[in-house]
Amino acid sequence: MSAKNRKNSYQTLADRDVKIIPLGGLEYIGMNILAIECQDSIIVIDCGSSFPTEEMPGIDLVVPDVTYLERNVSRVKGFFITHGHEDHIGAIPYVLNRLNVPLYATRLTMAIIEDKLREHDLMESVKRTVVAYGDVIEAGDFKVEFIRANHSIADSCMLAISTPAGTIVHTGDFKVDYTPIFGEPTDLQRLGELGKQGVLALLSDSTNAIRPGFTPSERTVAETVNKIFSDYQNSRILIATFASNVDRVQQIINSAVKAGRKVLIEGRSMVSVVEIAKELGFIRIPENVLIDIEHLDNYPDKDTVIIMTGSQGEAMAALSRVAAGRHPKIQIKPSDVVVFSSSPIPGNEKDINKLMNELTKRGARIINKETHVSGHACQEELKLIYTLTRPRYAIPLHGEFRHREANAEIAQEMGIPKKNIFLPDSGDVVSLSESEGGITGGVDHGTVFVDGLGVGDVGSIVIRDRQTLSKEGIIIIALTLDGASGQLLAGPDIVSRGFVYVRESEDLMEEAKAIARDTIDRVLRSDRVDWNRIKTELRDQMSSYLWKQMKRNPVILPIIMEV
Amino acid sequence: MSAKNRKNSYQTLADRDVKIIPLGGLEYIGMNILAIECQDSIIVIDCGSSFPTEEMPGIDLVVPDVTYLERNVSRVKGFFITHGHEDHIGAIPYVLNRLNVPLYATRLTMAIIEDKLREHDLMESVKRTVVAYGDVIEAGDFKVEFIRANHSIADSCMLAISTPAGTIVHTGDFKVDYTPIFGEPTDLQRLGELGKQGVLALLSDSTNAIRPGFTPSERTVAETVNKIFSDYQNSRILIATFASNVDRVQQIINSAVKAGRKVLIEGRSMVSVVEIAKELGFIRIPENVLIDIEHLDNYPDKDTVIIMTGSQGEAMAALSRVAAGRHPKIQIKPSDVVVFSSSPIPGNEKDINKLMNELTKRGARIINKETHVSGHACQEELKLIYTLTRPRYAIPLHGEFRHREANAEIAQEMGIPKKNIFLPDSGDVVSLSESEGGITGGVDHGTVFVDGLGVGDVGSIVIRDRQTLSKEGIIIIALTLDGASGQLLAGPDIVSRGFVYVRESEDLMEEAKAIARDTIDRVLRSDRVDWNRIKTELRDQMSSYLWKQMKRNPVILPIIMEV
Repeated sequence: MSAKNRKNSYQTLADRDVKIIPLGGLEYIGMNILAIECQDSIIVIDCGSSFPTEEMPGIDLVVPDVTYLERNVSRVKGFFITHGHEDHIGAIPYVLNRLNVPLYATRLTMAIIEDKLREHDLMESVKRTVVAYGDVIEAGDFKVEFIRANHSIADSCMLAISTPAGTIVHTGDFKVDYTPIFGEPTDLQRLGELGKQGVLALLSDSTNAIRPGFTPSERTVAETVNKIFSDYQNSRILIATFASNVDRVQQIINSAVKAGRKVLIEGRSMVSVVEIAKELGFIRIPENVLIDIEHLDNYPDKDTVIIMTGSQGEAMAALSRVAAGRHPKIQIKPSDVVVFSSSPIPGNEKDINKLMNELTKRGARIINKETHVSGHACQEELKLIYTLTRPRYAIPLHGEFRHREANAEIAQEMGIPKKNIFLPDSGDVVSLSESEGGITGGVDHGTVFVDGLGVGDVGSIVIRDRQTLSKEGIIIIALTLDGASGQLLAGPDIVSRGFVYVRESEDLMEEAKAIARDTIDRVLRSDRVDWNRIKTELRDQMSSYLWKQMKRNPVILPIIMEV
Repeated sequence: MSAKNRKNSYQTLADRDVKIIPLGGLEYIGMNILAIECQDSIIVIDCGSSFPTEEMPGIDLVVPDVTYLERNVSRVKGFFITHGHEDHIGAIPYVLNRLNVPLYATRLTMAIIEDKLREHDLMESVKRTVVAYGDVIEAGDFKVEFIRANHSIADSCMLAISTPAGTIVHTGDFKVDYTPIFGEPTDLQRLGELGKQGVLALLSDSTNAIRPGFTPSERTVAETVNKIFSDYQNSRILIATFASNVDRVQQIINSAVKAGRKVLIEGRSMVSVVEIAKELGFIRIPENVLIDIEHLDNYPDKDTVIIMTGSQGEAMAALSRVAAGRHPKIQIKPSDVVVFSSSPIPGNEKDINKLMNELTKRGARIINKETHVSGHACQEELKLIYTLTRPRYAIPLHGEFRHREANAEIAQEMGIPKKNIFLPDSGDVVSLSESEGGITGGVDHGTVFVDGLGVGDVGSIVIRDRQTLSKEGIIIIALTLDGASGQLLAGPDIVSRGFVYVRESEDLMEEAKAIARDTIDRVLRSDRVDWNRIKTELRDQMSSYLWKQMKRNPVILPIIMEV
């Protein structure tokens, strides 16, 4: 759809148009950052990071390329954050240390962000404003209102952005929970009011747009958890869930209190989020319920529950360390019950299976049915939001392409003409005015790899090298030449890594050496001796030899030293 | 459980004991091969390969280490194959070119094996016998009977192995389908008869042992397929499924015939399996239904259906090539409907998502609900088999550990005492006699990597190198020394691959070079000059510098040349 729009859309738009520019997060990876631009003002919504895929060996984190914002930094009025998940806040330390721009977020979200800023020693330099639901921030030509929303992390927001061209509603990540654990349902009244006044565009969460019906209330999980507590009264219970799902932790604690169990919170990020949430009042834990890990052994198994990180099979998280017998304080006992209160994020299935097998081998019983609900809106909830806001334009966000496409179909079903629905790629500029809309251009965008302390020094060439190295290994051919006479003084020596284990392939290596020597001799005896030619010939000859012998294609690296 | 059994099981067993030795396929990977041994005879059941995991970069295939069988080759009486899936036959060309032992399989299974043998030029050397359901093969001290079973590939078998210690029933992979597409249901009568006569041990398929109820009949898929054909009468329909699921292909063809559509079979393995199945009568295709790919464009979209490979997102399969626009003959049109008649094999989810997104971007509609049923028995079917056979011992096979553990729980529920249920690891020897059973030892086992034309020349050292290379890259430090005087003649030169892109990190590389030079000078000036010391010092100094600077840990490879 985007391609078609782009073709006939380089049109002149009215003066008071607003531009919506997703800078990331629209491909398969969840790196959410979106610029909204009008006249002399730009605001940015969210600033997420994403985890590296298999195709990015050795990379720790992927953050957005914000060259476009850097070039226009004088116009950037602020960063507005919808909620505290990594795919919405993870890149803040990397981006805001280059852009000195104010940051706005609600209390819990800001507290989680500050945890990150502290780690990166940026608490002094980043200007921060904590907002509450209903607050309106003036930012250049925009006014940004924070609207209450339900999601799998507390204190989440939708944003209503009043622009010279009309009001834009950005849902962030949301669901509609009529009976949330903490606080109130998504502010449907305010959405209705905004809709009545006229909404130019709805930018909405597509994650569950292929799922019919409604996402169940977070509260429904309590029933399963209570049942597990009563079914396994004599067992210790370990429950793994997402560290940031404070409401889930609250429910488990409620069940524990009811069952008279003590609760241990384990895993660095879980401990930190629960600490923050407790301090800010987002979670309520009665006295004498939480216990310290040092005292775990003082309580009988049947009187304890451990809430912990690691439900996605992450190798360094608490549950994986427990399963592998690498946890200093917690060992699995054959009577333990391990509950996965989560669903697998696509790509993690294999690690999770491995984890479950390890736990089973140690005798634990695994429970992973009906222990989780999603934090994202299904089809009927999306229809509700379209019906309340009645936007002129729809821009499905957040989700893989087929999810956004499904959201686009819902928008059409809700009466929005196809020409008013846009599925931009990252970097596409969607220009909207009251009378017309289209994809009118593109801006610089992309991803930056974080590897160790390096941000951006590992680029696509290095990644490509790593891919080849990992699949085929490397063969190094080293030789020393006399710079004056051009004579071979030493070598060729052949060294390999990741190719074959040399002791088992001595014949092959000997023959390879002979080929290298012949090649060097031939070039040195020829009319045109230059180092590059030696290198090229060595690469060609060695490649074709190894391919013929073994059907393999390692990196071949000639090194010529000159004396 | 196995650990506990092993502890107290080094006991003397009766003379007429039989040994059951899984040689692979009991870890997370599905490489099925199992030896049964009694007195002077060994038989082998299945001989599967598995696909490499992420942790085995560059590896094409993983096959079992059969050192144990090679050492005892004079006692090995035959290989008995239960069905034609890769995880049961894939290693045959690699194993039977080392062991000259007869091979037994049913018609379709053998035809698929022969396709492989032909590729490896082994048709002459491998002794083959085609068997039919009910046949009994004498093999040393054993008699092996082939019993009809339902599975997701036709001509599948269970085996009843009569041994001096009693009868062993091996289920292979199976389900109980009362209304199969081709042939008859699993031979429950024969299982009952065997049970009545007395079964020593049941070795059964654990894949679906965590799922309650019954696996639906393959026939139920027809309903969904018919509905898709009627819902999308005006669209071309592409259906991806497993190449070997001949019954599925038959059903789709039946629906196509009913709807008056022509059928194109696409994808190398699909074409080959359908060809074999047609020839042997396992699939019935009316005249003038199949069309050639060259004639596809002669038919209107609404009159065609394409059955193809690639439902697991395999990069080289037909559907992936179509989705990426790399297929020479088939291009996705916006009205196309793509049906995934399969469920994701764990680990493939991400590739499948990517594939679905690519197809959606090209305008196709994706259908993947209720278009697949499993080929493996659920809990109630396992209970049925236990009830029919009433074995003294149970050895759950085929499945991840937690699946086998779940099968063990079912066995217990069916009245088999816990001490008679064994969950061996690969290489464990389970010894059974009429009076007692236990894990009594272990034999050599393991995996062999196939990389290109090399079988077994890539070992764990090479794999470990590849892993480090892929995550951190390599730094090579090359220098030339005067062999007589020990003077530095050239270098140190520093070359990196997969580390950082040098042009962007010139300062770092310059400093690294200075450190290398200092290190070499220091060692050369010292009392104890030897080349290994230079190498060790270079490695240490460079590692600590790069870790301090960048928190990275590349492979560091000093190369010293002597003139």
